[in-house]
Amino acid sequence: MRTRFHEELEQLTGMLEQMCLRDETAIATATRALLETDIEQAEHAIDLCAHVEAMGQDAEDAAVMLLALQAPVASELRRVVTALQLSANLARMGGLCAHIAGLVRRRHPHPVMPDPLRETVSRMGAAAVSMAASAAQVLATGDAEAAAALEGRDDVMDQLHRDLLNHILGPEYTGGTTTAVDLALLGRYYERFADHTVEVGRRTLFTTTGSTEPE
Amino acid sequence: MRTRFHEELEQLTGMLEQMCLRDETAIATATRALLETDIEQAEHAIDLCAHVEAMGQDAEDAAVMLLALQAPVASELRRVVTALQLSANLARMGGLCAHIAGLVRRRHPHPVMPDPLRETVSRMGAAAVSMAASAAQVLATGDAEAAAALEGRDDVMDQLHRDLLNHILGPEYTGGTTTAVDLALLGRYYERFADHTVEVGRRTLFTTTGSTEPE
Repeated sequence: MRTRFHEELEQLTGMLEQMCLRDETAIATATRALLETDIEQAEHAIDLCAHVEAMGQDAEDAAVMLLALQAPVASELRRVVTALQLSANLARMGGLCAHIAGLVRRRHPHPVMPDPLRETVSRMGAAAVSMAASAAQVLATGDAEAAAALEGRDDVMDQLHRDLLNHILGPEYTGGTTTAVDLALLGRYYERFADHTVEVGRRTLFTTTGSTEPE
Repeated sequence: MRTRFHEELEQLTGMLEQMCLRDETAIATATRALLETDIEQAEHAIDLCAHVEAMGQDAEDAAVMLLALQAPVASELRRVVTALQLSANLARMGGLCAHIAGLVRRRHPHPVMPDPLRETVSRMGAAAVSMAASAAQVLATGDAEAAAALEGRDDVMDQLHRDLLNHILGPEYTGGTTTAVDLALLGRYYERFADHTVEVGRRTLFTTTGSTEPE
């Protein structure tokens, strides 16, 4: 019975890891759509996100089934509860990618972003992709250091987000109000995406080691 | 044993209802801070939100305890899982109120908003307050019609959000880029707050009736 439980828990964790890898592809695709004003990539990102949402429902159902059939306790129960919570974080990450891709679609054939900000947005995109990859790694291996490193990378994301806002609000900005509003929302979507990866790392670490600090 | 389970589930639902009522007070307080450029109300809203977050942790712990000690199955299990999910929605609602209040604090002693937009923001605030009140009612009574009505009111919120963006992006807007960015984020916070109340209604309804449609 316990072996069966561990097999099923491993399957569930595998589902979460797959969701996270799909989020990584989705944020990479949405960022490419944004930087290249590419409507096909934007549509593709939106499709990926719908898929992540469906995977989230499957993961939730699997977690509930595991609770019903195995009635785990103590740390095993905590791991299933965490899986439930993580499926919500991972589904939300997909939703944020869809928002980014949606902006590309709304402004098409015009670019969302003026050239001077491509560099900052491109770095935010790269940070988000790498954070999603690390979160997937934490899910796969329970690696405490990778989870802790996510928090450091979130500081980089926050700094990029501040740079973006400072640029929009600075005297040299001439991009107009629509673009400023788009960029403010865009910054918020990337920042939230990153927050969720940190949450994935932190919660996974907590259930693996019972602590939110690296050992 | 089953009676004990129902008592504890009722307590847990009561905790969620209290969180939701606290969110209602927090969004009312944050909106007042915003409309009156009142730093004390802003600080008070931020304190309320910290309290909601702590309540969320308590609710989560109570749900895990219930799963551990009572090992519920079928619809009873689904209700505890829903309670876990709702505690995350309700905590996030508090976080969004803190973001609104944070904007007031950041711009103080200046108002966040120019006078022509007070009416729209005031209506968004009123809609959010009433949606939180309805969500608390759904939690307290499992009222399917109140849950369904939340979706209709969310359409009103979406329309107000569009009005706000159209105003900022329209030719008559003269408020400057900082204010445009603040208002775009503000609109997003209210809209997300409303989305969470709809989610609370929908999930509660689903566990009460097994359907997301009113009977």
